Amino acid sequence: MTRSAQTLTLTELLDAHGGGPLPTALLEAHHPADIAAALTELPVERAQALLRQTPPATRAALFGYLPEGLQTELMERSRRAELAELFAHMAHDERVDLFNRLPPDRAERLLPALAHAEREDLRKLASYAEGTVGAVMTSDYATLKPELTAREAVEHLRTQAPDRETIYQAYVVDEERRLIGTVSLRELIVAPPNALVRDLMLEDVIFARVEEEREEAAAKIAKYDLIALPVVNGGHRLVGIVTYDDAMDVLEEEVTEDFQKVGTVSKLVTNVREAGVWTMYRARIAWLVVLVFGNIFSGAGIAYFEETIAMYVALVFFLPLLIGSGGNAGSQASTMMIRALATGDVRLGDWGRMIGREILVAGALGLTLAAAVLLIGLARGGPEIATIVATAMVLIVLVGSTIGMSLPFALSRLKLDPATASAPLVTSIADVTGVVIYFSIASALLPT
Amino acid sequence: MTRSAQTLTLTELLDAHGGGPLPTALLEAHHPADIAAALTELPVERAQALLRQTPPATRAALFGYLPEGLQTELMERSRRAELAELFAHMAHDERVDLFNRLPPDRAERLLPALAHAEREDLRKLASYAEGTVGAVMTSDYATLKPELTAREAVEHLRTQAPDRETIYQAYVVDEERRLIGTVSLRELIVAPPNALVRDLMLEDVIFARVEEEREEAAAKIAKYDLIALPVVNGGHRLVGIVTYDDAMDVLEEEVTEDFQKVGTVSKLVTNVREAGVWTMYRARIAWLVVLVFGNIFSGAGIAYFEETIAMYVALVFFLPLLIGSGGNAGSQASTMMIRALATGDVRLGDWGRMIGREILVAGALGLTLAAAVLLIGLARGGPEIATIVATAMVLIVLVGSTIGMSLPFALSRLKLDPATASAPLVTSIADVTGVVIYFSIASALLPT
Repeated sequence: MTRSAQTLTLTELLDAHGGGPLPTALLEAHHPADIAAALTELPVERAQALLRQTPPATRAALFGYLPEGLQTELMERSRRAELAELFAHMAHDERVDLFNRLPPDRAERLLPALAHAEREDLRKLASYAEGTVGAVMTSDYATLKPELTAREAVEHLRTQAPDRETIYQAYVVDEERRLIGTVSLRELIVAPPNALVRDLMLEDVIFARVEEEREEAAAKIAKYDLIALPVVNGGHRLVGIVTYDDAMDVLEEEVTEDFQKVGTVSKLVTNVREAGVWTMYRARIAWLVVLVFGNIFSGAGIAYFEETIAMYVALVFFLPLLIGSGGNAGSQASTMMIRALATGDVRLGDWGRMIGREILVAGALGLTLAAAVLLIGLARGGPEIATIVATAMVLIVLVGSTIGMSLPFALSRLKLDPATASAPLVTSIADVTGVVIYFSIASALLPT
Repeated sequence: MTRSAQTLTLTELLDAHGGGPLPTALLEAHHPADIAAALTELPVERAQALLRQTPPATRAALFGYLPEGLQTELMERSRRAELAELFAHMAHDERVDLFNRLPPDRAERLLPALAHAEREDLRKLASYAEGTVGAVMTSDYATLKPELTAREAVEHLRTQAPDRETIYQAYVVDEERRLIGTVSLRELIVAPPNALVRDLMLEDVIFARVEEEREEAAAKIAKYDLIALPVVNGGHRLVGIVTYDDAMDVLEEEVTEDFQKVGTVSKLVTNVREAGVWTMYRARIAWLVVLVFGNIFSGAGIAYFEETIAMYVALVFFLPLLIGSGGNAGSQASTMMIRALATGDVRLGDWGRMIGREILVAGALGLTLAAAVLLIGLARGGPEIATIVATAMVLIVLVGSTIGMSLPFALSRLKLDPATASAPLVTSIADVTGVVIYFSIASALLPT
């Protein structure tokens, strides 16, 4: 609550500022994330004018906290020299993201305006495929030689500090830049000043390869509680690091993707608030059409039993109840498994163990629900209908749960994302099987 | 892939180890998380025996990486002196979690076996309510006095290092332990050795209060890219810190809870793999029963139109198609909003803006699906049925989407968790409205 009040004041404060550089006191009193949030509330021309009044290093830091849409808009409104200055001051991983979002012709024209080292760094980082560790890593890391003493190493890190994303974890490389160890600033500070880095470093380094998926790197950082994870290329040469805050962002995006899949929305939508009507339409229509076809099968099942239904219209009363329960039990089971597979709580090999328990659980759930509908069946349709409805309920919940539980495993085994086994998909499949089970039992038991 | 092979070897290696302490080389060559994972694969007696052969500090580190179930089992098998030794060496936030899981009588008997300072620390940390910042913070933090020089401050942190969870961010407190600033080890190292902490520190500190929800603290750490967040009590006195790796765990648990809600599973289940049949049954039955009542309303709707249905049995064919599409469009909208509200991409006040767009998007989706079913309607029921089905489709998708989109906002406004607007709940509501819309149109347009 206090934060939004604070942001409001800050926005007003910034908006009221006239020409001339922004006061240092104001810039120092607020976290760049808060100033960036305040800028977002202003008209884009005003935000741009204020950014121009900010020293380049601060401007670059602020820019990194702005939402993607505003970043792109500001870049489009900037001259080439302004862009070059911005790029020179930004974190290496953030600027390559920006670079990749520039239209190809602007990107080409920007390159000659940059210093040689920056140009090479951008070209190198921009060359990694999206979704890989290479595309999220940064080249702002600190390296040490193994023959340095702890005192020399701390002195070396000290001079590198302003340019490096972290100096708390340093990487030890040989003459060919091969990663041979890692040492933390804490260990260097605690060690006797004359101890050698070679003797202090941990040799069994946890690392990622540039071509690995970025989610794997983020998972390693979370699992081993790392501040940063070194990234090596094919020759085991150190080429970058992924920091814990970038790993948090990756994990957050991954979860959003899983949610979108569970909600059968394609991953076109990166920002729900800003997305246009057409973007939202495209993100949703494909799955709805696919699911309609699933429902046509349910309809076909019903058509097949049309005679029985015409004779016993009361059966239709129980249709939503039965297929709904099968679908609900199935989506419970699938959603739980999707998450458990994503966190690693459950592995592919656990299917056998899980299916046995699922049958017991689903059986118990089905019996409970059957007991509930038995009474409604007696009241509305008599003992025959009640028996049919109760029997169908047990079977439908059992089959729905088993499908819901197994689908994420099956998709995983086929190297597809288990999150695709979304509630709507499971519900559609459970609907068809529910219709068939229900009316098969009915037409077998009822006189025609 | 390589990691699971490595774990396997490590498990075998550990299992093959005879009596006597575990070799230091083995303990140093592997990350505690990997050794803990290997121990988990062994029978509990064997894991306990191996832990007893490990030096206390390493044992405590390993213990922190074991799954909750195994931790509890090992604690139950330990003598009081062993427990006291373990507690003395564990991280403060981890040991208080363990302490809170001990049966009350064992917890009481353990306290006298601990040193005075540890006992007080445990009592203090254990007193915060579950889910608050106080319950996840740790008391292993480093503080500095404002009148120290940078050199003295580094020296001070150096001596505190082995006992502190992080020395990379230090907190500056006055004589009454009130938090007055924060300074990073990086700043201290870069600064001139004689600069005063008072002049180097950042005074506008981002902090949390002990009684805040732990998710708020985790969100601040993610937003401001912090290594640790200081925690203060009512008198603005520093009482603990929350570190970035604990924030990652909190965010991960929060997401799992959201998934469970979306899958209509209650949060009883903390570990899907280990949970028993009875736990799973209880976690799932309540929602299934609630949803059955929702479906009874659909059934009641159908019963109300029984005459129309008996005359035009072909209408039933399109029932799953229509109510299914409304439910699917609704779950798409609700799942997207649940996530967008959780990440802060969308705020409560955005509802007005969102609803306008949703109506346009849903209208377009409805028209597309109507066009598809129009053909099926013509083929199976003639022009009259086709008109009814197409008209119903547009309305049902529109109503379903609007409900799905608005429900998370409504729940949020009522201070309930928006994730409760799960796909199954939205589907149930959409089903009822779908039945009523469909058969109302049919009975109005068809001759009876």
